[in-house]
Amino acid sequence: MTYGAMTGTKTHSLKGENMDRFLRINMTNRTAKFEPVPAQYKDRAGRWLTSSIVHDEVPATCHPLGPNNKLVFSPGIVTGTSSPTSSRISVGGKSPLTGGIKEANAGTGWSRRLVRLGIRALIIEGKADGLWLLKIDKNGAQFEAADSHAGARLSEVYPPLFTRFGGLKTVDVCSIGVAGENRMSAAGICFNDQDGRPTRYAGRGGLGAVMGSKGLKFIVVDDAGAEGVAIAKQDVFDAGRKKMAAALTEHAITKPRGALNSYGTAVLVNIINEAGALPTHNFRSGRFDGAAKIAGEAIFEGNKERTGKELYNHACSPGCIIQCSNTWHRPDGSEHSSCVEYESAWALGANCGIDNLDQVAEMNLLCNEYGLDTIEIGGAIAVAMEGGVAAFGDGARAIELVHEIGKATPLGKILGAGALVTGKAFGVARVPHVKGQNMPAYEPRAIKGIGMTYAISTMGADHTAGYTIAPEMLGVSGKLDPLDPNKTELARAFQYATAFIDTTGHCLFIAFAILDIASGFEGMVEECNGVLGTNWTADDVGRIGKEVLDLELDFNRKAGFTKADDRLPEFMTYEPLPPHNVVWDVPDAELDKVFG
Amino acid sequence: MTYGAMTGTKTHSLKGENMDRFLRINMTNRTAKFEPVPAQYKDRAGRWLTSSIVHDEVPATCHPLGPNNKLVFSPGIVTGTSSPTSSRISVGGKSPLTGGIKEANAGTGWSRRLVRLGIRALIIEGKADGLWLLKIDKNGAQFEAADSHAGARLSEVYPPLFTRFGGLKTVDVCSIGVAGENRMSAAGICFNDQDGRPTRYAGRGGLGAVMGSKGLKFIVVDDAGAEGVAIAKQDVFDAGRKKMAAALTEHAITKPRGALNSYGTAVLVNIINEAGALPTHNFRSGRFDGAAKIAGEAIFEGNKERTGKELYNHACSPGCIIQCSNTWHRPDGSEHSSCVEYESAWALGANCGIDNLDQVAEMNLLCNEYGLDTIEIGGAIAVAMEGGVAAFGDGARAIELVHEIGKATPLGKILGAGALVTGKAFGVARVPHVKGQNMPAYEPRAIKGIGMTYAISTMGADHTAGYTIAPEMLGVSGKLDPLDPNKTELARAFQYATAFIDTTGHCLFIAFAILDIASGFEGMVEECNGVLGTNWTADDVGRIGKEVLDLELDFNRKAGFTKADDRLPEFMTYEPLPPHNVVWDVPDAELDKVFG
Repeated sequence: MTYGAMTGTKTHSLKGENMDRFLRINMTNRTAKFEPVPAQYKDRAGRWLTSSIVHDEVPATCHPLGPNNKLVFSPGIVTGTSSPTSSRISVGGKSPLTGGIKEANAGTGWSRRLVRLGIRALIIEGKADGLWLLKIDKNGAQFEAADSHAGARLSEVYPPLFTRFGGLKTVDVCSIGVAGENRMSAAGICFNDQDGRPTRYAGRGGLGAVMGSKGLKFIVVDDAGAEGVAIAKQDVFDAGRKKMAAALTEHAITKPRGALNSYGTAVLVNIINEAGALPTHNFRSGRFDGAAKIAGEAIFEGNKERTGKELYNHACSPGCIIQCSNTWHRPDGSEHSSCVEYESAWALGANCGIDNLDQVAEMNLLCNEYGLDTIEIGGAIAVAMEGGVAAFGDGARAIELVHEIGKATPLGKILGAGALVTGKAFGVARVPHVKGQNMPAYEPRAIKGIGMTYAISTMGADHTAGYTIAPEMLGVSGKLDPLDPNKTELARAFQYATAFIDTTGHCLFIAFAILDIASGFEGMVEECNGVLGTNWTADDVGRIGKEVLDLELDFNRKAGFTKADDRLPEFMTYEPLPPHNVVWDVPDAELDKVFG
Repeated sequence: MTYGAMTGTKTHSLKGENMDRFLRINMTNRTAKFEPVPAQYKDRAGRWLTSSIVHDEVPATCHPLGPNNKLVFSPGIVTGTSSPTSSRISVGGKSPLTGGIKEANAGTGWSRRLVRLGIRALIIEGKADGLWLLKIDKNGAQFEAADSHAGARLSEVYPPLFTRFGGLKTVDVCSIGVAGENRMSAAGICFNDQDGRPTRYAGRGGLGAVMGSKGLKFIVVDDAGAEGVAIAKQDVFDAGRKKMAAALTEHAITKPRGALNSYGTAVLVNIINEAGALPTHNFRSGRFDGAAKIAGEAIFEGNKERTGKELYNHACSPGCIIQCSNTWHRPDGSEHSSCVEYESAWALGANCGIDNLDQVAEMNLLCNEYGLDTIEIGGAIAVAMEGGVAAFGDGARAIELVHEIGKATPLGKILGAGALVTGKAFGVARVPHVKGQNMPAYEPRAIKGIGMTYAISTMGADHTAGYTIAPEMLGVSGKLDPLDPNKTELARAFQYATAFIDTTGHCLFIAFAILDIASGFEGMVEECNGVLGTNWTADDVGRIGKEVLDLELDFNRKAGFTKADDRLPEFMTYEPLPPHNVVWDVPDAELDKVFG
């Protein structure tokens, strides 16, 4: 398999042309064409654009793994510029996990390269036999067979690909693992980090299965010779970028040597556990005895002991100030697994009753190798444990279970299909999901606002859809009582603001800084105005966020969702959660008010 | 375990009391109480009553396997009388397969005994640890532990139970198999036939899993000393009963030595195959090369060759004129499997590409042994074959797959969870289901009316919800072109009429006779008036049928169903079906008009 063997339609060069284009790929016959951005999508990017295209082009009742679903990639408004912490790629489609619309995003240089080639959206359509590699560069798009890579671990596949295509300085790689090849609903889409590790995931909702159903294994993007992102008003952009950078550099959570840079997102383990809101043993309690052993502090101290150095975290993607990605090391000091996020440490650790960091890191590594969403897999394993497949706390067995997924055994196919299917297979009624997506690491009975986010999100249970944890747990933008159920306005405002952030291309973690530092918020809007030439104000953030949500809500309504889907699982309404011994008690009527 | 060891609340004797009661069982603490029938349920029985109670008492958004679901048994209006072909038992609850309301019914003497004890509805609530046997007789209800029977084949369990409780003349037995114990969504509820075989199933929708979730393994009913069913107007009843009997005895399909009595329901195999509407290879074609080998005629001839006798069929339950239940025999003339229905021969045979009757009969037997719905299991195996688990036509492997379910292996748990979950596990988009329930043996692309029934039924894909096959294929009540999509009125009328029949306690197969013979239809109404003292006319059939459907539609709406759920699977809209090479083309707007 050589570059010369590539086949497929040679698209025309981008050089000197209008920079904003769509690249539309038909996998059925492996053709590619550039299209101008339609007028109605002017100024749209990131989640706003993926949700617009999915809403407008994908039949809401189509099968997620059938030929009529589409997979849409779109960098954010400021992605590819010098704006800090802005290298997100939004990926959209109809989710095989939830049956609704999905946007999952990741931070990766791949997004920068795509937008610098002038590609505002990459739209994958149709369905090929076999597995294919798609190469995109300034000369166009080309295809080659990739069947020989089927079943391999991603860490074995990525290095030779980089070598072949010119290395990390030239290309970034998007891929699915064996989970996506097998069309598992817990399959994510993988992007490399700055060191080429296959570790950055648009993880949630099974978009990896959609990519697999289309027969697309790799997308290699080479931006050599690209013209970059045009900026309409450079001075406005520069002013905004500076405010954003200052806010990120100042805030205690996001600054260098701050909480995230020192301890990673897993700094939350002890905080949330102390608050009695760290779900453990498949959401049987909000407090885990072994929490401190898998917390960010333990990762920092363990690494120090094993490497002899105080290791601060690294950036997942170019241009990030926060730099929250950690790497866990083996006893001999060699690299084991990156990145052990809060969500992963919780899902594969606390939720399964496992408090051994080496075991959790191994499971985390295997999820990256096989192309899996750590949250969904931790949830599926915990439900399987509830169904008697393994004892809670049995890390060795849990590692075997992840291997079952990698081997695509029947048991692996159950787990790989996610927590809800695992519950159906094992006859378990206690599945902590909304719309088929397993809950993340915050117990909604103990933190009511995040429970509202889970319930009403268009995405299924998703903390990133409206991270009310900021005020409810962290004192960001004020401090709220987590047990107070009156958070209807909060839930709405956070979802709208988040949809806007997901549109800019910024990482959601800028929220800590811009919620507390007004100039940071202004900076975000000014950056967008600078790139687009718009005159947006703070009011436009809510307006655009609402527009994004309205598109997603409309898609889900057409797909068959109703208010009955905007509910937490029944068991949370009658099973009191220790240590607070509270049930889920936000009235349905309040949930229904959020989006009206 | 002896009868003397039984524990639990001793309910009061029924003797001399008002005959119409509810018996309400709480499995959590194993208590039982009789209640008078509430005024609003006057005249309701069978499906009308199960759907009323489920609608009124079960929270529509509850988890089907949680403590708040209920399982309701109700004999029909004329069950337990001398009315012919009327020993159906309706079983209702929220379905773990569809997430909607469910009524599944079976023909069995168990239903007669229950109603002769004055029990209009048996309502199972709560959730026990372990497995229990419930014994109901004129002295009340008693419980004993039944854990020792877990995992056993039903044919091994039933004979000693009959021996212990006084034999076939004294009791009938309702049970779940290993599938229900494992809370599999394809688990049915089993009743014995007149020879004590565990073969008559309220099969569809996973109500066996609901029974299993409540910890209820057996319900033994002994009607010794019962007062029987009170008849308000004996002369009216007698007149109706005679008309019904005459119609059944006259019609070519239902009469003795008629089509059903001679060849069983599998008489349809050749007819439907000839019409190009027998789904095969997971709904890839409407014609199966091996159809004749698994047809009713082949069963008749094979039995003749192996037993040396022309075997006509037997009645599944007391008082049936039609007598359509067959028994397949081994080469040595010994009994192999009963009953090989059309649906089972198709699901386990044609749909899996299997044309060997001995293999099909063995799979059928195993479904009875393990407590499984043959339609759902045949569908799940066909989807698994599409997913590469086995080759179409490999009967030996298919038998092993049913054993996997009986052993509750991971692969068995996938299949036991039904076709839709199997599709999710194997990443198969071609799952021929509606609302999560696999389609039965009529290709909707080739027979549009039955496709409308599948799409709009409250039950998921269910031919018995509105058997338009009668006019579309069999010339009963006229002859319609199966490919004509204009059947909105037909689909509505058949669903309403069916809901009424399911309320009477009659087998749906009376429909052949009463559709063609007007006096038979009159007889059905008169029988009901005789028992109840009502003055219903033919108009009340439609009125009551609509009332039943409206209750079910309301439950499903509250459970989150929308018009988007009233659709056939997407692949049928773009994949032409041989030999007619037609797609599903009934407009959505027509489907939406059926129930408005």
